[in-house]
Amino acid sequence: MSPLDFVPLAPNEQNAIGVLGGLGPYAGLDLVRALFDETLASHDQEHLPVTLISYPGQIPDRSPWIAAPEESPSPVLPMVEILRRLDGVGCSVAGIPCNTAHAPVLFDQLRDALELEGRSMQLLHIVDTIVDLIRERVPDAQTIGVLATTSSIENRLHEIGLEAAGMDAVVPDAAVQAEVQASIFDDTWGLKAKSNPPTPKARAVLLNAAAHLREQGAEAVILGCTELPLAVPEPEADGLPLINSTRALARALIRATHPAKLRPLADSLAAARPVASPI
Amino acid sequence: MSPLDFVPLAPNEQNAIGVLGGLGPYAGLDLVRALFDETLASHDQEHLPVTLISYPGQIPDRSPWIAAPEESPSPVLPMVEILRRLDGVGCSVAGIPCNTAHAPVLFDQLRDALELEGRSMQLLHIVDTIVDLIRERVPDAQTIGVLATTSSIENRLHEIGLEAAGMDAVVPDAAVQAEVQASIFDDTWGLKAKSNPPTPKARAVLLNAAAHLREQGAEAVILGCTELPLAVPEPEADGLPLINSTRALARALIRATHPAKLRPLADSLAAARPVASPI
Repeated sequence: MSPLDFVPLAPNEQNAIGVLGGLGPYAGLDLVRALFDETLASHDQEHLPVTLISYPGQIPDRSPWIAAPEESPSPVLPMVEILRRLDGVGCSVAGIPCNTAHAPVLFDQLRDALELEGRSMQLLHIVDTIVDLIRERVPDAQTIGVLATTSSIENRLHEIGLEAAGMDAVVPDAAVQAEVQASIFDDTWGLKAKSNPPTPKARAVLLNAAAHLREQGAEAVILGCTELPLAVPEPEADGLPLINSTRALARALIRATHPAKLRPLADSLAAARPVASPI
Repeated sequence: MSPLDFVPLAPNEQNAIGVLGGLGPYAGLDLVRALFDETLASHDQEHLPVTLISYPGQIPDRSPWIAAPEESPSPVLPMVEILRRLDGVGCSVAGIPCNTAHAPVLFDQLRDALELEGRSMQLLHIVDTIVDLIRERVPDAQTIGVLATTSSIENRLHEIGLEAAGMDAVVPDAAVQAEVQASIFDDTWGLKAKSNPPTPKARAVLLNAAAHLREQGAEAVILGCTELPLAVPEPEADGLPLINSTRALARALIRATHPAKLRPLADSLAAARPVASPI
């Protein structure tokens, strides 16, 4: 045995932030970037401890399994295994940069597994963090638009959370929703296939869908799939506030572990990245 | 014990790529992005398994310790501890996105610790990967410029590797080197303090330094600090090939684990990201 064995990291590294990535890979990366961007730090050593595990190969797409669990491969066990590993490297809180995976039929099993195994790592729910960010950014808004996968829309994932907080949701009509879904999953121009940079078509579809929701009364629009901010990173479109679910999750993860390091929201919005792919 | 206990990931996830990040945080993120960009994949599930551990709080700056180990806090033990954790989550190969940390006085201790502890995880040396990329991109080049931290320049880190491969190195004169060092470490405009987006000044200093090396005969220039590509992501400047040390390491990590998934170099260069911060 080497004399280097068993030298532990100091205690503050036990308060690390875990990211269950790979859903998709670039969305996981975007959450890590958001964690760094939302942290008050001017030297390397002031940044927070973060672990990203991005093992996409064995995590099937969430949507088909949520729709028909008996007919599709399950993402539950691989996701639980990655959460265990995040817990094992010292993470005290974790987030999943995939809105769709927060459907109760899936997310509840993940939380239950952590609890059954007696693990102390806390798992945040992305919709809770989105609702908190809406309340902070647009406290008077009543009607909120939702852009998300068809799976999330059909399950009313965000709608239920908004209604519980006293707000109303509006969602795209079927034709626009089909376009939003394609902007994520289309094999040639969707964000799962091309996100660095995203295609102009994906971006155009999403901006059009946001305008469509505004016409139905939306006072703000949730980018309720973590792929969407890859194409639309800016905090508003023609004055309509866009609620970035990745940023919402990042801010909540920092608040849960190192609240004094959280960048003020106004600074964060002012510094939001320029458009990734100008049309 | 829960019935979910001890369900392992399938074997291919044991061949994951580890990233010892936090040196600095954005450079670690840039390596993960490079790993995704350099992979042939059009669906989430086709991407490679990657773990990033970014725990910067306890990893002191490498340069002062390398210069005077008895007077500065050591980065060795925290880095070893992170390598252990990468090994523990199933990584078969790992990279360190920090050129300076590859000085023999530091890097050799890391490799020795892995070997002493009997760990099978392979640790690549970034200079080896840079030399390989030079040989692939500009096989006839004889004189190579080096942009790096003053620590790496003083230790001749890249020079020694270039000479071993039969090439000659040119480095900046003292005044230009001081500017390059400031572009990394300056508290107000350096890349450690501001890299998303980088400041125009940091970018201008680096482009000027590359031109300065070309005047001394450089046929290509190594961006030999992983912070530098954050300000200069493009593959060439005015026709002068820029050798991105982060991309070099990413391609070598993929080649070491999943060679059939490595994107052809020509495609990679053609798709290089646009300038992050136009001047």
